[in-house]
Amino acid sequence: MLLKVRILDYVDRLPTALLNPGTASSLGAIDGSRVRCEFGGSSRTAFVATSPSVPKNRVGLDKKSANALNVSEGGSIEVSYCSPPDSVSYIRKKLKGQPLAREEIMAITRDVVEGVLSDAEICGFVLGQYLRGMSMDEIEHLTNSIVETGSKIEFERPVYDKHSIGGVPGNKVTLVIVPIVAAAGLLIPKTSSRAITSPSGTADTMSVLANVEFTPEEFKSIASKVGGTIAWGGKLGLAPADDIFIRRCEHPLGIDPLSQMIASVMAKKVAVGTNYLVLDIPTGRGSKVERTEDARALASNFMEIGRRVGINVVCGITYGSQPVGHAVGPALEAREALQCLEGKGPISLREKSTALAGVLLEMSGVATSGSGQSVAKSILDSGRALKKMKEIIEAQGGDPRIRSRDVTVGSHVVSLQSPCDGYISEVDNNAINEVAKAAGAPNDKGAGVLLHGKRGYVVKKGQPILDIYAEHAPKLSDAYAIAQRSKPITVEGMLLHLIPDTV
Amino acid sequence: MLLKVRILDYVDRLPTALLNPGTASSLGAIDGSRVRCEFGGSSRTAFVATSPSVPKNRVGLDKKSANALNVSEGGSIEVSYCSPPDSVSYIRKKLKGQPLAREEIMAITRDVVEGVLSDAEICGFVLGQYLRGMSMDEIEHLTNSIVETGSKIEFERPVYDKHSIGGVPGNKVTLVIVPIVAAAGLLIPKTSSRAITSPSGTADTMSVLANVEFTPEEFKSIASKVGGTIAWGGKLGLAPADDIFIRRCEHPLGIDPLSQMIASVMAKKVAVGTNYLVLDIPTGRGSKVERTEDARALASNFMEIGRRVGINVVCGITYGSQPVGHAVGPALEAREALQCLEGKGPISLREKSTALAGVLLEMSGVATSGSGQSVAKSILDSGRALKKMKEIIEAQGGDPRIRSRDVTVGSHVVSLQSPCDGYISEVDNNAINEVAKAAGAPNDKGAGVLLHGKRGYVVKKGQPILDIYAEHAPKLSDAYAIAQRSKPITVEGMLLHLIPDTV
Repeated sequence: MLLKVRILDYVDRLPTALLNPGTASSLGAIDGSRVRCEFGGSSRTAFVATSPSVPKNRVGLDKKSANALNVSEGGSIEVSYCSPPDSVSYIRKKLKGQPLAREEIMAITRDVVEGVLSDAEICGFVLGQYLRGMSMDEIEHLTNSIVETGSKIEFERPVYDKHSIGGVPGNKVTLVIVPIVAAAGLLIPKTSSRAITSPSGTADTMSVLANVEFTPEEFKSIASKVGGTIAWGGKLGLAPADDIFIRRCEHPLGIDPLSQMIASVMAKKVAVGTNYLVLDIPTGRGSKVERTEDARALASNFMEIGRRVGINVVCGITYGSQPVGHAVGPALEAREALQCLEGKGPISLREKSTALAGVLLEMSGVATSGSGQSVAKSILDSGRALKKMKEIIEAQGGDPRIRSRDVTVGSHVVSLQSPCDGYISEVDNNAINEVAKAAGAPNDKGAGVLLHGKRGYVVKKGQPILDIYAEHAPKLSDAYAIAQRSKPITVEGMLLHLIPDTV
Repeated sequence: MLLKVRILDYVDRLPTALLNPGTASSLGAIDGSRVRCEFGGSSRTAFVATSPSVPKNRVGLDKKSANALNVSEGGSIEVSYCSPPDSVSYIRKKLKGQPLAREEIMAITRDVVEGVLSDAEICGFVLGQYLRGMSMDEIEHLTNSIVETGSKIEFERPVYDKHSIGGVPGNKVTLVIVPIVAAAGLLIPKTSSRAITSPSGTADTMSVLANVEFTPEEFKSIASKVGGTIAWGGKLGLAPADDIFIRRCEHPLGIDPLSQMIASVMAKKVAVGTNYLVLDIPTGRGSKVERTEDARALASNFMEIGRRVGINVVCGITYGSQPVGHAVGPALEAREALQCLEGKGPISLREKSTALAGVLLEMSGVATSGSGQSVAKSILDSGRALKKMKEIIEAQGGDPRIRSRDVTVGSHVVSLQSPCDGYISEVDNNAINEVAKAAGAPNDKGAGVLLHGKRGYVVKKGQPILDIYAEHAPKLSDAYAIAQRSKPITVEGMLLHLIPDTV
């Protein structure tokens, strides 16, 4: 059917053909069907949207599709019904519980990246994984398909890497591990994510001290020069499929299927040529993995996929039931990481960072078996890690003279006091995250939460147990109100609720 | 944040706020997040889409949202981050495998109808049902929530109804059952669907003979006057939630969760005040339900939900492995239904229609137990059903003088011949559907397939076994090519494949 083009000012994530419902029906299409749009020898598939306000002889076309077809306003294009691509039948197959072959998974990932699958179809694939599960073969194919649909960065020498599956607040260990490992002479070109649902991703934290957005060439040159980077992975184009899965299904639905998580992590590592990986699996109530046996199973899955894609993986199961260190929020975490590098800062951050760095030192042979953590600590204590961090900050365009006390944090601060004498019995990760986000993190870099104590600390009635930082006063009030209600820290013996709430 | 409005010409299914990525980020929002838009005391939630071409101080707003806010081009609205509604957390709960309470299901259905859930979220709910299952309590709540979010039609006397769960081609029995039951003096205000993936829905078939689109008032008046209708349900607003579930998830993903199917059918019946329902469950290879034991389980679920919502349900398990009658496609099916009412037509259509009509006659007491089908046959043979059908056609604005031979079918016809002597061993529902749709059904009403034989028929080599009808020659060629490849009819002894395909 020949239709006159009206170019839509709307920039959709999907190619769109806006049709009169009558026109759609005579094409055999309904809302969400696909049509083929042809003009001057080129062809594009678009998703039908209908509106009675569109004249019957017209098609509204999004700008991107119009550009791709090289058609201008008022031009006539041939529009015809078009069946879904094969990948849609593979998604349906997965939903029915059948395993997918390599080529089928490849077809799905390719179509995801090319933007020809709808949200419903992408969610079908991710939820199929979540609820039907994926075999090791399928995860391997998914990993490879994500690598093959993205770009790669190659280095001339062995690549060491560190990754955390996340889920624990205040986990700024990357900012300590990378300089230790690089100071030991190893190459650790680390890419990190920005926060999606947490108060600060590693890239958000590092962005307080330096730039984190680089082209693949810049990234490679920085890592090659100083031995390490702490960069945002999002601009490097390493795993575009993964980004789409997250934005269009996992984030909206709050799910993170195991298979997708493993494939996503491993694909990004393959893309930067990682040879040795230490994987942090925070475990415990309130973190992503609640039970040690689940953490062990996850570790063995990661190691198996590592074996299949050529990465030597060692997993560290760490304590994830309360924040790492005391600070949560970009600037507060960056400050705490610098404190640790300066030889100060909380012991949990120092212990966890050196333990994981030590694994990489042992894998490389820089440290002998069993001595990794003590070698890591000696690098930290000698000041070499701090010196290396300054080199990295400078190479990433930041100010290498920065000290922890120079980091600007939110100027609006309020403290929560302990309601009684006692031991801290509970620190609630979710509540900490909620308060830090209400205070403005991660967008307001100075916003966040600083704990004065964690589980087992002795506190006196009236003693501050937690400070909330904000850049804007109204957000501080919001965060304070939430903290009053959600009680991020429990002191044993404190009255949790009064029933009825007035006596 | 105060932003200037630019009204988008795009009419999306979802309220949309188009933002510069920087603006979105400073609101703490990403693609797909929700924002609250406020203007002059009213407030609307919209989904964020981002485009670098939008200036930082602007927000693109879809027309519907702009109208709802009563804001014009260039007006300034307050835009702020907004958390997902509670229904989203209930969807996540279902995905985790937890059962939902009445109020939770109600909240989801209400938000579906109000258009405030994204495709990802709607798919999350439907796939959660599909892969986690739903209890009888949950299905009951889902049914009631669909009824409560739609409109209702009330009649003064008992309402009889018939429904088929579908999946078998050529199932035009409604066009025979409704006139028989109405001729017996019972009220049967039947609503039907149009085809989504099949070559003809009952509403498509009936639309060959009369109008099928009515307002609720017209529908009630026709049914009250002549005792029966065969109308399209889509315009009556009876179960808007169901329509959204189908369009935005079930159709794109090709799934039809049991719980959603039961709730959808029963909700539509409750909405027209059905008291007695006969439910057709076509069973067998190539239909929706393959095994008799599954059909029995499904029947008992329908009867249980019927009991809970006040509908007396009897289920008929019917043979679903090949088409009912010989005709597939709107006009061919309408013609065959008229033939049956005129005392001609295939025996399978006559038997199935009178069997199901007989159940309703027995439920009503018009026929004694065990005599329903013979009473139905006598109504058919006496010509009273044909007379009633003509009344219904006239009341629905069609020509009551129409005879089966007056029905116009496609003028382009091609026959498939039997390649050998033998018995027909297989009629493939999927292949029949594919051929009929390629020929143009259901949009080209005259297009479809006419079988000359079904399973067990004796055929001679060269004898026509199937005719393809089309309104347009190119579609006939397409359909013929598909039929050559997919072999909708198998004659025992015929060569199915040659390997290699040239000798």
